[in-house]
Amino acid sequence: MASTIQPRLFKGCRDALPEDMIPRREMLEVMTRIFETFGFAPVETPAIEFLDILLGKYGEEGDKLIYPLAYKGGRTLALRYDLTVPLSRLVAMHPELPRPFKRYQIQPVWRADRPQPAQGRYREFYQCDVDTVGSPSLMADAENVAVCYRVYEALGLLDDEAGLVMRVNNRKLLRVLVTAAGLDADQDKTVCTALDKIDKIGREKVAAELDEKGISADATHRLFQLIAVSEENGGRPTATLEALRATLEGVPGAGEALDEMAALFDGLAALDVPDERLRFDLVLTRGLDYYTGPIYEFQLTGLASFGSLGGGGRYDDLLSIYGVGDIPATGVSIGLSRVQSALVKLGRLESRKSPTRALVLHLEDVPQTTSLRLATRLRGEGIPTEVWFEPSRFKKQIQHAVKLGIPFVLIQGPDELERGVVQVKDVRQGRQVEVMESDLADHLRSAD
Amino acid sequence: MASTIQPRLFKGCRDALPEDMIPRREMLEVMTRIFETFGFAPVETPAIEFLDILLGKYGEEGDKLIYPLAYKGGRTLALRYDLTVPLSRLVAMHPELPRPFKRYQIQPVWRADRPQPAQGRYREFYQCDVDTVGSPSLMADAENVAVCYRVYEALGLLDDEAGLVMRVNNRKLLRVLVTAAGLDADQDKTVCTALDKIDKIGREKVAAELDEKGISADATHRLFQLIAVSEENGGRPTATLEALRATLEGVPGAGEALDEMAALFDGLAALDVPDERLRFDLVLTRGLDYYTGPIYEFQLTGLASFGSLGGGGRYDDLLSIYGVGDIPATGVSIGLSRVQSALVKLGRLESRKSPTRALVLHLEDVPQTTSLRLATRLRGEGIPTEVWFEPSRFKKQIQHAVKLGIPFVLIQGPDELERGVVQVKDVRQGRQVEVMESDLADHLRSAD
Repeated sequence: MASTIQPRLFKGCRDALPEDMIPRREMLEVMTRIFETFGFAPVETPAIEFLDILLGKYGEEGDKLIYPLAYKGGRTLALRYDLTVPLSRLVAMHPELPRPFKRYQIQPVWRADRPQPAQGRYREFYQCDVDTVGSPSLMADAENVAVCYRVYEALGLLDDEAGLVMRVNNRKLLRVLVTAAGLDADQDKTVCTALDKIDKIGREKVAAELDEKGISADATHRLFQLIAVSEENGGRPTATLEALRATLEGVPGAGEALDEMAALFDGLAALDVPDERLRFDLVLTRGLDYYTGPIYEFQLTGLASFGSLGGGGRYDDLLSIYGVGDIPATGVSIGLSRVQSALVKLGRLESRKSPTRALVLHLEDVPQTTSLRLATRLRGEGIPTEVWFEPSRFKKQIQHAVKLGIPFVLIQGPDELERGVVQVKDVRQGRQVEVMESDLADHLRSAD
Repeated sequence: MASTIQPRLFKGCRDALPEDMIPRREMLEVMTRIFETFGFAPVETPAIEFLDILLGKYGEEGDKLIYPLAYKGGRTLALRYDLTVPLSRLVAMHPELPRPFKRYQIQPVWRADRPQPAQGRYREFYQCDVDTVGSPSLMADAENVAVCYRVYEALGLLDDEAGLVMRVNNRKLLRVLVTAAGLDADQDKTVCTALDKIDKIGREKVAAELDEKGISADATHRLFQLIAVSEENGGRPTATLEALRATLEGVPGAGEALDEMAALFDGLAALDVPDERLRFDLVLTRGLDYYTGPIYEFQLTGLASFGSLGGGGRYDDLLSIYGVGDIPATGVSIGLSRVQSALVKLGRLESRKSPTRALVLHLEDVPQTTSLRLATRLRGEGIPTEVWFEPSRFKKQIQHAVKLGIPFVLIQGPDELERGVVQVKDVRQGRQVEVMESDLADHLRSAD
């Protein structure tokens, strides 16, 4: 501990100060309560996973964003990239778990991405995932979308200013579109990777990328015609479904894929997710390699060029990699950090700097143990109480309360002590009242 | 995603299944509530810190236990080792924070230690820290011990079977003992490192280690005589203090160190921490390099050879390393994972596998959307509800409820639907009653 070290943080990593953490804790309470009403049970996994558990699940670009540890030359361990792959690993290691296994998990993940704070993109961020492992039912997918809807509803993101939109699509349908465009079904990943960028880079550049990948201009043209069907129908579930049934008539697999989408929409209606909130969007592909069925992603139309607030989908093949046979699974992730950034941008997060309700002031002629005794009584009654220990001027002590947003300061000098009372000063209004010690907790609790 | 990957975890890292997480969440609620009644505000810091921020604070042995990332040859970034150094870094970066700054922080830390699950020792574990930065007052130290006492009290660790003991000592006093034994004050770190092991390896081996470090047999003998004072007085605060005042009379610095201890005990009395719970223990040294004043550590006498449940102390010099001048600070850490292991060992954690209160059974002649509608109503009333989606036999569905400890299953066939009722089966007692749909939420809430 000799020379000075520059205090600093790795780019893309952030401290959460009390004014960030207090609303975050409230958001987490809302989310866990809603997750649990849907019957999801909490799980956590370690930050450190074996590298081979993670690699090859997120696509080539995802793999590059994994942070390995220096341990054993950097080829053995890494920080988790998401919560889905660790869950799959956990389920594979615990055959005793119930099926279906409904779990939620709220933990940070790490990605060696280019940080873009303005878009809410960081290298460390919380994911809040719910997954159902062991059920092939599309109702489990509907529940994924519904549980997110209930969370966004509780956080106040349904009004026009925020403009929550829940985009849904299906990887099976994307495969059908690829064949309907005259391509090989196996080219679907190439097509999806390119299509995934259409919102960011536009059609022309996507067409150029497809051309580079050996997709004919003709096939690309036909593909663009097909995916335009959802936009032509405003993404409205029923209209888009009907249009696609007509367009894709006779194309192998189209019936199954569209039946899945119909079932998903029926489930969502039963789960009280309004049709107007949903957008059947054929452009939605989701980046990750492991999806196999319905996929979903949630955005705010009210915040231009702001990233997604969450998303997910079905990944029926992921677990088989761990040698546990075919176990269907589906899940969704809410980006807590992203949602919090959105609420801040919309000016909807109350910013508090302290949980403290009362500050016991220090008086020169009163021993500190007396202040501690008063605080101990209040704390025992559940009133968050701080005690000032230093021999500072009154003004400085009261400024501390003002700075932290502590509403009350308490003064108990020898005279008050003798009479069993406390002077209670409301630092917001400047008013001061004398309160009996025995009434103090109630007074502090009820006073506005 | 081709060949099979063995699902496994790095040694010393654990998954937390629902039966671990449900009680952990309850413990965390207790802790955060108590932390906040003391006026501590929540903070989080990133898992990744610059390596030079961490190195040189934990002692030689601590530094070896840090996990660097592979990034830039493993010499730049690392996982946090504790929450104290990241807090100091945070405070140094945020001069706008109030002083004193009282914060709590609950996050995992990583140490490349030899895992000993039987002693509750892992490579990833949660620390729950409270710290007061910017106050030199010993009352802040007293609050550290008191807030932990209140947590252990709320978790039921005060009875004789658990046998919570709160050991306290002071680094300044250890320095005094070192000089009183005829050694140089600067040899205090060597002495502390050796003494720290006395409980584990015994006096003889500690003496041998001191001998190896060049401490004379005479000085070691005198040192052992001095530290025996606390044991001779049963570690009782007042008796030990008095005995030390007599023994150390005239030794430079003894008065100040003992006055600090006296003030700490006075503060603890004012904070309603019973004297019998405290043990003034001169053998306590705490491993970390950064402590400068009072130190404390908490153990259960009821669990033989079980590690500490928490501890901390004052570190007035740590922040100056970041070039922000002298800022006194003191803090304490509760080892959540360790406390949970202790509660499990004592058989005091109720093990629940699911938050779900009711499982809606699947009937062949009822569409799944009907079950979802029933669940949606119950969830809207705050009843955690799961829906069975698969066409399984009744027995299998009920077994799922039994396995997860879900108390009720709900049956609503076409007849019940028409009559607006639901059959409610209590799977623990086997009893079945018919309940009006409108009364269902109340029934499930109130039924035992």
